[in-house]
Amino acid sequence: VDESMLRRGESTANAVWGNAPSVLVGDFLLGKAFQMLALDGSIDVLRVLSDTSAIITEGEVKQLMQVSDVTTTRETYLDIIESKTAALFVAACEVGAMVADRNEQERAALRDFGRYLGVAFQIVDDALDYAASQESLGKTVGDDFREKKVTLPLILAYEQGNAEDREFWRRVIKHDQTDTDLHHAIALMGKGNILKQTFEVAQSYAQRGAECLDVFADGQEKQALIELLEFSVNRPY
Amino acid sequence: VDESMLRRGESTANAVWGNAPSVLVGDFLLGKAFQMLALDGSIDVLRVLSDTSAIITEGEVKQLMQVSDVTTTRETYLDIIESKTAALFVAACEVGAMVADRNEQERAALRDFGRYLGVAFQIVDDALDYAASQESLGKTVGDDFREKKVTLPLILAYEQGNAEDREFWRRVIKHDQTDTDLHHAIALMGKGNILKQTFEVAQSYAQRGAECLDVFADGQEKQALIELLEFSVNRPY
Repeated sequence: VDESMLRRGESTANAVWGNAPSVLVGDFLLGKAFQMLALDGSIDVLRVLSDTSAIITEGEVKQLMQVSDVTTTRETYLDIIESKTAALFVAACEVGAMVADRNEQERAALRDFGRYLGVAFQIVDDALDYAASQESLGKTVGDDFREKKVTLPLILAYEQGNAEDREFWRRVIKHDQTDTDLHHAIALMGKGNILKQTFEVAQSYAQRGAECLDVFADGQEKQALIELLEFSVNRPY
Repeated sequence: VDESMLRRGESTANAVWGNAPSVLVGDFLLGKAFQMLALDGSIDVLRVLSDTSAIITEGEVKQLMQVSDVTTTRETYLDIIESKTAALFVAACEVGAMVADRNEQERAALRDFGRYLGVAFQIVDDALDYAASQESLGKTVGDDFREKKVTLPLILAYEQGNAEDREFWRRVIKHDQTDTDLHHAIALMGKGNILKQTFEVAQSYAQRGAECLDVFADGQEKQALIELLEFSVNRPY
């Protein structure tokens, strides 16, 4: 749906096969997933995951409605990424606690951990769209910019920019872009330390995620979750 | 996914809103449907409907794989429409029996009824694509032809056509079409009584559907199902 040609270093299904097979096979995988869930037989897990699939797709629709709106607030942005990304992380973490029959305190802790992890992960993703080199990112750089998605780096740059910078952001997000605009956008991000600030926001979510794990005893499982947090905010791609 | 501009007399979501909103809202509705099913709490109904959603989407993919293949057999065509269309009718009929706690014999009868109804409905749909006037059909005439879908009318026309006719079908389905080709295709269908034969095949499925209802006592519910069969094969749109 974002019309990207590359994902994780490979051509997207849409680029290789076109729209119809990509949409239909996507629907098939969604149906197949629910089939497997229903076969497994836990109605509680099924409820969590069907709620989640509705929340995620709703988040994608909300994001679409904010496209081209350069005045998108940080609160709206966070609401969108909690739905479209963090909800999946929350479900993955919560279902782990459910199938392992852990108590409600631990289940809530893992749910919170998943939310902070997911938000941190998505913020870094949005920063990398302006920061990463195309080779290491494995997807096209500047996709969000070209699609006029208003992500955290852009919100910070717009908030902190001077009159001329704001005029630039308004034009490229609300109206037309030229070939050199992405280059200028990246330069503005560097000049204002915007990406550094963005990574710091992600880091603060990762920190809160780590605190959620305090209810668990130390051990290799807890260590693995902490490493996952650290990777999410330090990854080069 | 079929790039049609019209459905039931209205512009398609894709024509009005474009690809991304249509795909995402479609996914949202699928997630929302599973959420409502999980909330309702019948794991058996959920199994039937999640199986069905996998079968339907698989049928759509199978259909896509047969595009442009003028040698598609009647068996392959029936297999495709049983998946992509009749499976939905089967599930709707079977779930009715399930929530009403009817016995296995009645449940099987409704399942079979749904399959015959769905197959008859789809065969008529495929005939109307060559037969209906655009005003009464509420969707664009000749969509299947332009998309190079090989449906029953085309299979019969190809089977029964002379060498020149077959050459025409091969060109328009495997290669390129010109503006006058749809007109010629419809003329060939008329010349060979192809649409009449197609409607007769649909009628024979409707007949078998009616026989499935023999296990039920006469009454207005049974009468409604019979009228549904009759409408499906006699509808002008």
